[in-house]
Amino acid sequence: MTGRSQVTSIVKMRGNLRESVDDRVAVEEPLEIRLGYEADGERRTSSVSITMRTPGDDEDLATGFLVSESIIRSPADIAIVKPCRGDNAIRVELESGVDVDLDRLQRHFYTTSSCGVCGKASLDALRVVGVEALADDTRFPRETLLALPAHLREAQATFDETGGLHAAAAFDPYGELLIVREDVGRHNAVDKVIGALFADGQLPATRLGLMVSGRASFELMQKTLVVGMPLLAAISAPSSLAVELAREFNVTLVGFLRGDTFNIYAGEERIAK
Amino acid sequence: MTGRSQVTSIVKMRGNLRESVDDRVAVEEPLEIRLGYEADGERRTSSVSITMRTPGDDEDLATGFLVSESIIRSPADIAIVKPCRGDNAIRVELESGVDVDLDRLQRHFYTTSSCGVCGKASLDALRVVGVEALADDTRFPRETLLALPAHLREAQATFDETGGLHAAAAFDPYGELLIVREDVGRHNAVDKVIGALFADGQLPATRLGLMVSGRASFELMQKTLVVGMPLLAAISAPSSLAVELAREFNVTLVGFLRGDTFNIYAGEERIAK
Repeated sequence: MTGRSQVTSIVKMRGNLRESVDDRVAVEEPLEIRLGYEADGERRTSSVSITMRTPGDDEDLATGFLVSESIIRSPADIAIVKPCRGDNAIRVELESGVDVDLDRLQRHFYTTSSCGVCGKASLDALRVVGVEALADDTRFPRETLLALPAHLREAQATFDETGGLHAAAAFDPYGELLIVREDVGRHNAVDKVIGALFADGQLPATRLGLMVSGRASFELMQKTLVVGMPLLAAISAPSSLAVELAREFNVTLVGFLRGDTFNIYAGEERIAK
Repeated sequence: MTGRSQVTSIVKMRGNLRESVDDRVAVEEPLEIRLGYEADGERRTSSVSITMRTPGDDEDLATGFLVSESIIRSPADIAIVKPCRGDNAIRVELESGVDVDLDRLQRHFYTTSSCGVCGKASLDALRVVGVEALADDTRFPRETLLALPAHLREAQATFDETGGLHAAAAFDPYGELLIVREDVGRHNAVDKVIGALFADGQLPATRLGLMVSGRASFELMQKTLVVGMPLLAAISAPSSLAVELAREFNVTLVGFLRGDTFNIYAGEERIAK
């Protein structure tokens, strides 16, 4: 089970108690799937997927992806499946004679195998874009955070009759939800909040926190950071890469916000009292 | 709030009771984001994202995506944001003079604006791939389904100390979990299960069901269908497109599998007694 979770030191808040403990977070790391195949009499290699995944069973992940995209149909189609060590990538070489129609599946394909994620740290990719560590002095009272889940549920109750929507909200240090958006996709709900702040001329939003109804992944933390929001609070667990990104760029990351407890994974100083 | 949820007729199972009722599911539909910009003195258009989303606030979704990808920085960068009616697409035209570096962001970009999702029904895209409606006679007893969540929790308890992993499992009509896999990404957990079945020569898996710990989206239903599994059971809600796909291709779709109840959204005849 190596590499599926890792230990990290966090601050557990329970009522007025603040306790430093070691906890485990799920590991999240990029994996690129590279497909080798024969076309017009020559071998080619295409990058067919880049996904954030938890390490383990990478061979199954790669072949399962190719099967469910209808690229391969039988184990006999495959010559080799081989991790590219140190490169966050896995290579699947097809037998010659296996017909691959990349055009048909283009929506899943990327134009090049050299991307900003694989072969170097994802965090580096952000630095390249010019994102800098946050330097605000915004503070969020403990009570504000504890009251958020109830506020979000209230706001959701008016829209969501399906139980199938993720919610995201921008809130201020007093706990007011300024914008609430919902979507079947968590990243879409967050993009809708960001778009609304953007249209309103409120970016960078250095005085606002972002809340999400589910888990905190690298992708959501990256969005939080890019728009200058100093705090991301999630009802569920954060991933290892979300924690790493939060610490590196000085964003406060709160997880498991439920009842009268929550965990602080980074940026403890922004949680007042 | 038009278009965020839709009414569908389902079968509610509670203990031994089987009741036909109307229920609401969250709408899931593709949206393509097309970016118009100036480069080398001429206007160009690129498809920069295709995402499955819940309709509503599409303008915010598009601009929020571009902001969080660091493509635009200020409302002044934008000339027009305009839905392409009837085309599941939205067009964002940037002002001339706004510098766009698509190369840097290539991992999110697609090679062409004509894709298998937009401008025609997603279901059609599957037909093009040659996927046919399932024609198995596999049956799953009601008790098997009701026992699944406990089995999955047991299996997860041995791995997941983080609370941050999604689980997916392949099970037989007797309720045995043959394969259980976990990942921070739901679609990855499913791909790992499919890859394991594939390696074991068990595809198409016409005698097995697939279970997921979260929601049932179009993407998960598509994977279920492609590998010939006749049943997808989710702990949480399905999306509208997952329901549509299940009905069109004769897959049984079960949602809200909790306690002694579950909902059947499609393929009721496979649930015995």
